[in-house]
Amino acid sequence: MSNPEWKSVGNGHLEGPVPVPDLDPSKLIITRSESLKPIPKPEDLLVFGTIKTDHMLIVSFDPATGWSAPEIKPYGPLSLDPASSCFQYASNLFEGLKAYVGPDGVPRLFRPEKNMARMARSAERLALPPFNPDALLELIKKLVIVDKRWIPNATGYSLYLRPTIIGTRSGPYFRNGTKPISLLASTENVRAWPGGTGSHKLSGNYSPGFLPQRVAIKQGYDQILWLLKDENGSYQVTEAGIMNIFVVVSREDGDLDLITPPLDGTILAGVTRDSVLALANAHTDGKLVLPGIPSNRRLHTHERAFTTADIDHWLTLGRLQEMFSVGTAAILAPVGRVGIKDLKGDIKDLILPSYEDGIGPLSHAMLQMILAIQEGRENFEGWSVRCE
Amino acid sequence: MSNPEWKSVGNGHLEGPVPVPDLDPSKLIITRSESLKPIPKPEDLLVFGTIKTDHMLIVSFDPATGWSAPEIKPYGPLSLDPASSCFQYASNLFEGLKAYVGPDGVPRLFRPEKNMARMARSAERLALPPFNPDALLELIKKLVIVDKRWIPNATGYSLYLRPTIIGTRSGPYFRNGTKPISLLASTENVRAWPGGTGSHKLSGNYSPGFLPQRVAIKQGYDQILWLLKDENGSYQVTEAGIMNIFVVVSREDGDLDLITPPLDGTILAGVTRDSVLALANAHTDGKLVLPGIPSNRRLHTHERAFTTADIDHWLTLGRLQEMFSVGTAAILAPVGRVGIKDLKGDIKDLILPSYEDGIGPLSHAMLQMILAIQEGRENFEGWSVRCE
Repeated sequence: MSNPEWKSVGNGHLEGPVPVPDLDPSKLIITRSESLKPIPKPEDLLVFGTIKTDHMLIVSFDPATGWSAPEIKPYGPLSLDPASSCFQYASNLFEGLKAYVGPDGVPRLFRPEKNMARMARSAERLALPPFNPDALLELIKKLVIVDKRWIPNATGYSLYLRPTIIGTRSGPYFRNGTKPISLLASTENVRAWPGGTGSHKLSGNYSPGFLPQRVAIKQGYDQILWLLKDENGSYQVTEAGIMNIFVVVSREDGDLDLITPPLDGTILAGVTRDSVLALANAHTDGKLVLPGIPSNRRLHTHERAFTTADIDHWLTLGRLQEMFSVGTAAILAPVGRVGIKDLKGDIKDLILPSYEDGIGPLSHAMLQMILAIQEGRENFEGWSVRCE
Repeated sequence: MSNPEWKSVGNGHLEGPVPVPDLDPSKLIITRSESLKPIPKPEDLLVFGTIKTDHMLIVSFDPATGWSAPEIKPYGPLSLDPASSCFQYASNLFEGLKAYVGPDGVPRLFRPEKNMARMARSAERLALPPFNPDALLELIKKLVIVDKRWIPNATGYSLYLRPTIIGTRSGPYFRNGTKPISLLASTENVRAWPGGTGSHKLSGNYSPGFLPQRVAIKQGYDQILWLLKDENGSYQVTEAGIMNIFVVVSREDGDLDLITPPLDGTILAGVTRDSVLALANAHTDGKLVLPGIPSNRRLHTHERAFTTADIDHWLTLGRLQEMFSVGTAAILAPVGRVGIKDLKGDIKDLILPSYEDGIGPLSHAMLQMILAIQEGRENFEGWSVRCE
């Protein structure tokens, strides 16, 4: 996420804080396969995508040195660190286009500039490095020429090309610490939707958040607060970055409400989320005492929807005590500030109550209790499982 | 998509048409690294995910032989075919959990059975093979014991574990042919939504369709017809499988309407979609004559939303002439039947008009014209680009 942002302007370099080389077809290195494969007859090519040609085109990107010299080389496996973002967060995209042999014997591509332009847009959406689409097309044409013998010379048959970009870095994805974080509520990007996959821990749920996160950082916020418009046009709060979210609201009877969005199919069933709910209930039921929280302080847990308007309203009433996000990596992060767009599109900052040490009493209690259980210093319902 | 469906029942075998071995910790092979890495001090571990331990746990699945003997071996890169579905379609998922050392010196995991259960649910959602969650936990415990020296013995520090499943197959993803296909309209799963990534060709948009597609096939349909509920509660038609969708509707004036959903952010800007619209306009404008379509036959193109109720209504009126899906791989597939759930949840089949050869006149004309341009037999606006 800390990569500078580049732009391909077609002059051979990606423009940005530190310019780096753009894709450059003149640097192409071709290493031909020494053992060409037998080519099946067109009528034997019954199943899409099962047979690969002799060669592939590879270019790699390094933030320090830009796009490498492109290589056409024998088709073969890729060797990648298991922590690469292509495996973990699905920072991957692809294109599909076909090559034909014309009546003149020359290989042809169908409107390939459309694919190149879409590929550039996809890369931008995933915060992957930009590239010169014309340069990529030139390189793909070279590959088609090298593998020309694979294009079936029969009507209705073609060679399918599959340009693909995969993220190979495994860089930092969130930071630890208990300094309050700031959230930018996003009305443009929506993490999950009814009927989508937001309740599952799928890689593909993560990379779409990279660009919004980068935009949030640029605007001075740490993470995105994800929203979902409800039937009344209000924005329900769903998650924060890659964490579940809680608010602590004081009640008229002096008790506290601890509220988190329900598992309605758009919310990840976080283990820390479940643990916070269980620990709050255990405190109220007298099964344990959360550190620093009076044993007679009742915590009412609610899995129910709330909106950005609710946050604003609770703050105005002086009832919103704490807001925090939870997840395995950071355990708990207190929220200090939420940027919300008003009707004019201006961002208004909602400021949460501040505390000494930056963390509210219930947030602190939860973090300490969870850490103590995790580290085996406290026991609770067999949550800490020994490896032996 | 043709894999049989298995179920892990905890008896050592995955149950299914042909039972295959489930995950089996008793088969574990441990190969220890010969050169252990130096361990950083806890205070130097500032950035999440940058340093990896000495070992990793690997198990692979083959539909013919089931889960392989698990291996703990030196941490290192994975070697994979570039066409693997983990790169192409993001058939990937992960979990995150942490290991701690307790006061007794024994490594501990925090509620790991929650992660294992969620991982099994994620695998099911992506149509990846099932596994015995208890067996996986047992194997992860072994890995923690092997890499125990990496767990920082300081409060607030832990070793992060990242179980991951990636799809390694590159199997067929769609079939060719002009036999009419059948579509099952899905009200449960939603491909794309406002603020989502449906308009981009991201890998993560594809694997969530694997399971619904499998369900459709089980119910006797070829593909899913993707829907999105609009503000009136009607189901807008968005895409079909991994293709854009068109309907051909006759008008009172004898002309034809050619309608496809608009590029509103939920629809992929398909190259074939764009080509069909352009060719229809060119026919109406007299710039070309589509094969078999009278030159004075006017085709009115519309990029606008339509619903399953509209399809039903047009059919009732006898106005729905043709329906077809388009994409690069198959170019054009005529639709013969659409299964739609009624209010009771029963599936009602809408039957499209049938034609000799299975394909309607406009569908046939489009397919022939696109093929002719792609193969360089016809020229249109420089769409066929020579590689030289």
